[in-house]
Amino acid sequence: MKTLDELRQRLRQFARERDWEQFHSPKNLSMALIVEAAELVEHFQWLTQEQSKKLPEKTLREVEQEMADVFIYLNRMADLLGIDLLDAARRKMEHNAKKYPAHEVRGKADKR
Amino acid sequence: MKTLDELRQRLRQFARERDWEQFHSPKNLSMALIVEAAELVEHFQWLTQEQSKKLPEKTLREVEQEMADVFIYLNRMADLLGIDLLDAARRKMEHNAKKYPAHEVRGKADKR
Amino acid sequence: MKTLDELRQRLRQFARERDWEQFHSPKNLSMALIVEAAELVEHFQWLTQEQSKKLPEKTLREVEQEMADVFIYLNRMADLLGIDLLDAARRKMEHNAKKYPAHEVRGKADKR
Amino acid sequence: MKTLDELRQRLRQFARERDWEQFHSPKNLSMALIVEAAELVEHFQWLTQEQSKKLPEKTLREVEQEMADVFIYLNRMADLLGIDLLDAARRKMEHNAKKYPAHEVRGKADKR
Repeated sequence: MKTLDELRQRLRQFARERDWEQFHSPKNLSMALIVEAAELVEHFQWLTQEQSKKLPEKTLREVEQEMADVFIYLNRMADLLGIDLLDAARRKMEHNAKKYPAHEVRGKADKR
Repeated sequence: MKTLDELRQRLRQFARERDWEQFHSPKNLSMALIVEAAELVEHFQWLTQEQSKKLPEKTLREVEQEMADVFIYLNRMADLLGIDLLDAARRKMEHNAKKYPAHEVRGKADKR
Repeated sequence: MKTLDELRQRLRQFARERDWEQFHSPKNLSMALIVEAAELVEHFQWLTQEQSKKLPEKTLREVEQEMADVFIYLNRMADLLGIDLLDAARRKMEHNAKKYPAHEVRGKADKR
Repeated sequence: MKTLDELRQRLRQFARERDWEQFHSPKNLSMALIVEAAELVEHFQWLTQEQSKKLPEKTLREVEQEMADVFIYLNRMADLLGIDLLDAARRKMEHNAKKYPAHEVRGKADKR
């Protein structure tokens, strides 16, 4: 699986084969997405920032799986809503580049 | 911007130019990610599932921007942790395919 | 345990006895709180709204426990920050009553 | 407003006067609750743990309002589901006291 398009195709098939399309409204998928995001947060809740940068291999593999879940639901939702995530990210970054000019915000916390 | 790799490169540069690398610990990025996920959820909180499938164009454009934000933080975090999201998603889907065989779970709610 | 004040006292003692005060920064507690909120959301993610109003007894008991966890972290955090939750809620409701006059917003979705 | 019971009464009336009961399914309220929890997290996302312990007065007042919102939705949801939050918290703490005996977990991160 090499592209987001291929991922979306597979997710469509996965849901169809299980008759899960009935559960996959954008509303429900937004809930599933935030639940997975929280499972990611859970790994970091009691760590210091420094510890979070040097995760033990086992934790890193768990974190990777939670990130995969977020990624999966985000792409499933994007597919249903007809959203191109790479293109949306490109436009958001152009917007952010204007909103936070490097020389003005340098070293100040990201307020996005 | 055509690939996830290109997105990661741009996010790296964006943070570097603003001296934001100091804020971008995995711990902090997991918080930023869930905050954006919640801004996505907010759009759907009072909608019925049917309404969430037929968003007005204006809401859809806002939803798209929140999804872009989640996507951006997810890719930024993946870059810092050395995680390949497409590959992690592929492996997670293979795992899910075994865990939820189509003939067993058909029509029952996704329990991921 | 009859009052919020008693709950706060017990939470303080619970953390002290376990030497958990070192983990309980407001930052970390906000993360723990949202993780518990997501465990609550997880129970509802694939349900219809109607189903969410008629939970099976077993699910209701699990939901109750997740709500207890959110409540616990919220009170722990309030204690550390010197916040009186009942008083803060009272003031917020007075603010909301002015912001959303009943005759203006009747039947329109809560936009808080 | 001195008690949780009084808060619940007021929340009921607030929703009734605005005809918002139609939006207040447990599913939707769990979404509203996590959205408010995320607004709380947002205040802390780029802070160090030390900074989160010494919030400027203005930030503390904003944090207080977000906590009030979480508290409001939690109590509204508890009312609809017939849950007594103080009693549920008491039982959860008794459960936690057995699950995490002080002498065993002392100084190890809270794994709730």
